[in-house]
Amino acid sequence: MEKNLDESCINTLRFLSVDAVERAKSGHPGMPMGDAAMAYVLWTRYLRHNPKNPLWHGRDRFVLSAGHGSMLLYSLLHLTGYDMALEELKNFRQWGSKTPGHPEYDPKRGIETTTGPLGQGFANGVGMAIAQKYLESRYNRDGFPLFDYRVYAIVSDGDMMEGVSNEAASLAGHLSLGSLIYLYSDNRITIEGSTDLSFTEDVQKRFEGLKWHVQKVNGNDVEEVSDAIKKARDEKDRPSLIIARTYIGFGSPGKQDTSEVHGSPLGPDEVRRTKERLGWPLTPEFYIPDPALNIFRSAVKKGEELEAKWNSTFGRYKEKYPALAGEFLSLSEGKEGAGWIDDLPRFDPKDGPVATRTASGKVLNAIAPKTPFLIGGSADLAPSNNTYMKGMGDFLKGSFGGRNIHYGVREHAMAGIMNGIALSRLLIPFGGTFLVFSDYMRPSIRLACLSNIHVIYVFTHDSIGLGEDGPTHQPVEHLAALRAIPNLVTIRPADAAETVEAWKVALSRKCPVALVLTRQNVPVIERGGYSAKDLRRGAYIIADPPSGEPELIIIASGSEVHLCLGAFQRLIKRGVATRVVSMPSWELFEEEDEGYRAEVLLPGKVKLSVEAGSPLGWHRYVGDKGDVMGIATFGASAPQKVLFEKYGFTVENIEKKALELLESAKGRFLDGL
Amino acid sequence: MEKNLDESCINTLRFLSVDAVERAKSGHPGMPMGDAAMAYVLWTRYLRHNPKNPLWHGRDRFVLSAGHGSMLLYSLLHLTGYDMALEELKNFRQWGSKTPGHPEYDPKRGIETTTGPLGQGFANGVGMAIAQKYLESRYNRDGFPLFDYRVYAIVSDGDMMEGVSNEAASLAGHLSLGSLIYLYSDNRITIEGSTDLSFTEDVQKRFEGLKWHVQKVNGNDVEEVSDAIKKARDEKDRPSLIIARTYIGFGSPGKQDTSEVHGSPLGPDEVRRTKERLGWPLTPEFYIPDPALNIFRSAVKKGEELEAKWNSTFGRYKEKYPALAGEFLSLSEGKEGAGWIDDLPRFDPKDGPVATRTASGKVLNAIAPKTPFLIGGSADLAPSNNTYMKGMGDFLKGSFGGRNIHYGVREHAMAGIMNGIALSRLLIPFGGTFLVFSDYMRPSIRLACLSNIHVIYVFTHDSIGLGEDGPTHQPVEHLAALRAIPNLVTIRPADAAETVEAWKVALSRKCPVALVLTRQNVPVIERGGYSAKDLRRGAYIIADPPSGEPELIIIASGSEVHLCLGAFQRLIKRGVATRVVSMPSWELFEEEDEGYRAEVLLPGKVKLSVEAGSPLGWHRYVGDKGDVMGIATFGASAPQKVLFEKYGFTVENIEKKALELLESAKGRFLDGL
Repeated sequence: MEKNLDESCINTLRFLSVDAVERAKSGHPGMPMGDAAMAYVLWTRYLRHNPKNPLWHGRDRFVLSAGHGSMLLYSLLHLTGYDMALEELKNFRQWGSKTPGHPEYDPKRGIETTTGPLGQGFANGVGMAIAQKYLESRYNRDGFPLFDYRVYAIVSDGDMMEGVSNEAASLAGHLSLGSLIYLYSDNRITIEGSTDLSFTEDVQKRFEGLKWHVQKVNGNDVEEVSDAIKKARDEKDRPSLIIARTYIGFGSPGKQDTSEVHGSPLGPDEVRRTKERLGWPLTPEFYIPDPALNIFRSAVKKGEELEAKWNSTFGRYKEKYPALAGEFLSLSEGKEGAGWIDDLPRFDPKDGPVATRTASGKVLNAIAPKTPFLIGGSADLAPSNNTYMKGMGDFLKGSFGGRNIHYGVREHAMAGIMNGIALSRLLIPFGGTFLVFSDYMRPSIRLACLSNIHVIYVFTHDSIGLGEDGPTHQPVEHLAALRAIPNLVTIRPADAAETVEAWKVALSRKCPVALVLTRQNVPVIERGGYSAKDLRRGAYIIADPPSGEPELIIIASGSEVHLCLGAFQRLIKRGVATRVVSMPSWELFEEEDEGYRAEVLLPGKVKLSVEAGSPLGWHRYVGDKGDVMGIATFGASAPQKVLFEKYGFTVENIEKKALELLESAKGRFLDGL
Repeated sequence: MEKNLDESCINTLRFLSVDAVERAKSGHPGMPMGDAAMAYVLWTRYLRHNPKNPLWHGRDRFVLSAGHGSMLLYSLLHLTGYDMALEELKNFRQWGSKTPGHPEYDPKRGIETTTGPLGQGFANGVGMAIAQKYLESRYNRDGFPLFDYRVYAIVSDGDMMEGVSNEAASLAGHLSLGSLIYLYSDNRITIEGSTDLSFTEDVQKRFEGLKWHVQKVNGNDVEEVSDAIKKARDEKDRPSLIIARTYIGFGSPGKQDTSEVHGSPLGPDEVRRTKERLGWPLTPEFYIPDPALNIFRSAVKKGEELEAKWNSTFGRYKEKYPALAGEFLSLSEGKEGAGWIDDLPRFDPKDGPVATRTASGKVLNAIAPKTPFLIGGSADLAPSNNTYMKGMGDFLKGSFGGRNIHYGVREHAMAGIMNGIALSRLLIPFGGTFLVFSDYMRPSIRLACLSNIHVIYVFTHDSIGLGEDGPTHQPVEHLAALRAIPNLVTIRPADAAETVEAWKVALSRKCPVALVLTRQNVPVIERGGYSAKDLRRGAYIIADPPSGEPELIIIASGSEVHLCLGAFQRLIKRGVATRVVSMPSWELFEEEDEGYRAEVLLPGKVKLSVEAGSPLGWHRYVGDKGDVMGIATFGASAPQKVLFEKYGFTVENIEKKALELLESAKGRFLDGL
């Protein structure tokens, strides 16, 4: 009887998914059919959550790393009582629905993270567990287990094949993140066919090598799965992998265990046959038996009780540890008031040249004491990225209150983990590497942007200016490639003063921000009446002719700005009415109104842009009469000064190009040539 | 005595590196000092190569995946007699030298691949081994072991941490690539400090799980290393990992086993102390004892003998298997004459709409029989990418003559492996995935471009046109991001006819080419007097007003071209003299002379670009009077037709935008706004 009820619940999950895919004429039925049993066990017996308050900080997290099985998640959310109407399931994959093809971060509906691109959810979960360990270490006190939540995930063959999951798993094992419990749906089928074609490694042995606790179960056996989860919960030190043998498209007489059922509707005939085989009524579609609904929906009451208990614990905590509780509340309620803004360093031209990466490190260290929400590190380049917060401790097994994370040479996992940390909605993660290696991180950067979560990238060594390491390490196309990503704010400050302002933007805006910083020293600019605070507007005038309108505007970012100011001096001496615009951020500039933009760029004037990177996109700002000084090839290995000279980024050459441009621009149209 | 000679050879390697880094005031001495012993053993006892003909096809390959140890490689090349003068070592990391900071592919000097970004060399080696297995299977015959070469690499902690190496290792183990022998320099130091900070996994166990043959040795013990290499050579089935305990900065009294010695010169005092400790003369710098030189330089004679023997074998092979030998020679001498060009399919408007991915699959299958040099596959999306060559067999253990590679869900490794295959200079690899997942591949794509090697990317599902899978799978910024990479030719054909031409370009140009293809059907365009063959020029007129000069030019690529042709019809009816330009490739267009470009784009005319992707870069072509129809946000989950409508890509909306633009463009300047 109980067994029948289990089966009924599991089949409810299966057929909600099957029917939704069928109606959408698009989607992935195979995974929900295969993984429904273990999802059922997890969600009804173990997951601690409150469907009526999906933002409750004490909840367990559930990540559907195999995001193509989205209908399984939507079904669970509907059945357990989240704000996910049955109507939404019926509108699966349609314009305006809450049920897109792959889960998109929707915290008020219980969708903890955006998944689909494989391996990403795996890494997100590790970030969630890192956040948990940090919060536990910082805020839990004897008798006040505020942050003891667990992070569960369902991961697939594809997740296991992606390199990012190995990176994240290696770090999770290294850190002994015992709160991680991953169910690996080992269905032995990929899109091209059997895993025999491409994936025959011994996953158990690999994960044991990565220092995980590994179990093997039959994914359709409710009690086996349940026992394994119980054991995994008892394992406090090692993260747990439960390798569950599952069957893609389970129950489909014609399609189970075939790649065909992965990403296409079953078709009406096969739906009928499958329902018949599993003893499910053919109609109505989206059928939910009352007893099954009752089982799932009991999550509401349980969840309310769990949260009530947590709230009462927190109430007592607040009395006993008012300072800690206050700090915690400031994390969740807003971080601007924490006072860090008063601690920002000031940089003066007379202090001499300073690399913006160095300035960034000084900012970070200055604000660290008042920013307990800020936690981060580097992919093994902390001394170069200047991302180490002195005195704030290392985040390591046994010292999870440390705020410096050592990611190892794992840029991709770092970015995926940062997303997971940010999803706590309490912590702001930062992560450093060389700008050139942002390429390794792009899939995760993209998801941060799609989810619009608060992460800060510290990309140093931002041009050929890194010198001798050569073209393998010199970014050329990366600024353009980052600027292309929607929702990402990219900032390349001109000097130390702008770097301070860049960090202010990065901390204040609740979105992904990329700071792009020099390796080499650059002077702190003498600004006269102009202020680096205008960095927040994306671009601003930093030098103007002594009188009258400019006839030439030079626009630059980063380490090229001071060179342009050198050229400005010479051009002014020649009587060329020149303006220099510092343009650290296109995205911020484009948020300004047309009036301000026109004021800065004076449409119709001759304009020259100067940036030691790909010219891509600059034509927009310089216009038909303008010219772009950039780098359209790869860099080279040589000392920085030699490279800047060889690639034309000198005061003299900028002056020369400006004069040539003024000469040639008279009356020409250059669009497209 | 012999032991002393070994030591002298090893110290020669160490101190050439130390002195070069010292002179350059920049570089990485620690790795060459730590790994010199094993490099010495490998290069003097095992590596089969001919320094006087580094292009000899029968040679073993050596990959320095830990590319920061470049001076170790340059020292080996100089000492064993390659075209690498001592002067070049003295010019390490200087402008114009042959010794850049990290190795850059330089086949005539024995630099087999570009390395430095970690994990890449690891994957390249797997590609080289795949090429070896394919060539062996296709060309070796009893008594004619033409392709039995091995692929050796030195890999570092960083390589082992990067996800791409796990992906590549998993595939190598799966395929039983016994010709791979990797020496892992386990020096337990990363830039941030001890590997205890971030990397404590059991590498041996992981690699055993990945089905590798694993040994552990003392990396400074010449005989232990030698025995291990011998055993690895005897292991025919499994790839081999030799975990060699090494000591970064070996011999430096003050800096051995510290992260300080990784990436900075020792400094004169420490150089002195190190030379004293290892019994090395303090002067001259770049000291090479004659007996050591003799040992290394014997590679020249041995290499000439090895190649002579190979050539004689090949001579007999040519007599016995003239057809096979002829095919092989055509691989190395030019692939254009192979006759495939006659087999290309033709597409006609009356055949009805066809997705460009489908057309691409038809091209690939049509040319497959006459293109034995073409080998490739997909990262588990072959049925979607249409990259499967029917009847050409699967590349699997036991059938290495198959030309369809199943990469699994491992996009990054696929790209790194493709580089390794291309480096054979005999085979052209292609690799498919969704365009959105090109992000996973970027680090390897970049190195293909930096090395300028012949690889073909088949990126399908190229816009929101992929529909219901939603924004996680819909590329928006990827075209822009690819266009930003120097040396990459990106082609987004408008229809099946252009797809044929795109493949012609991809096969004929010896550079990296990215084909960007639709999921959805698009009509085969009725071109009148215009020809898809002009795709090779990057952009060409595809419709023009019946008479007179155009007043408006619409520029589009891919699936938007036919929509623009629809708008053209309506605009012409309204009496608007409209031109439509199909612009599948910016890079090809920019290679054309100014005359052609001006003829197509008519500088000064009002222009509208239409592409369902990031607007980034289009302003260059449309100019100040123009406008850009693109997508500056992420996509959404819904059927394709709904999305094209919601995002404004319809005939009616293009017409409307064109009319609005014509109205507003009168006399305005819009640069920067």
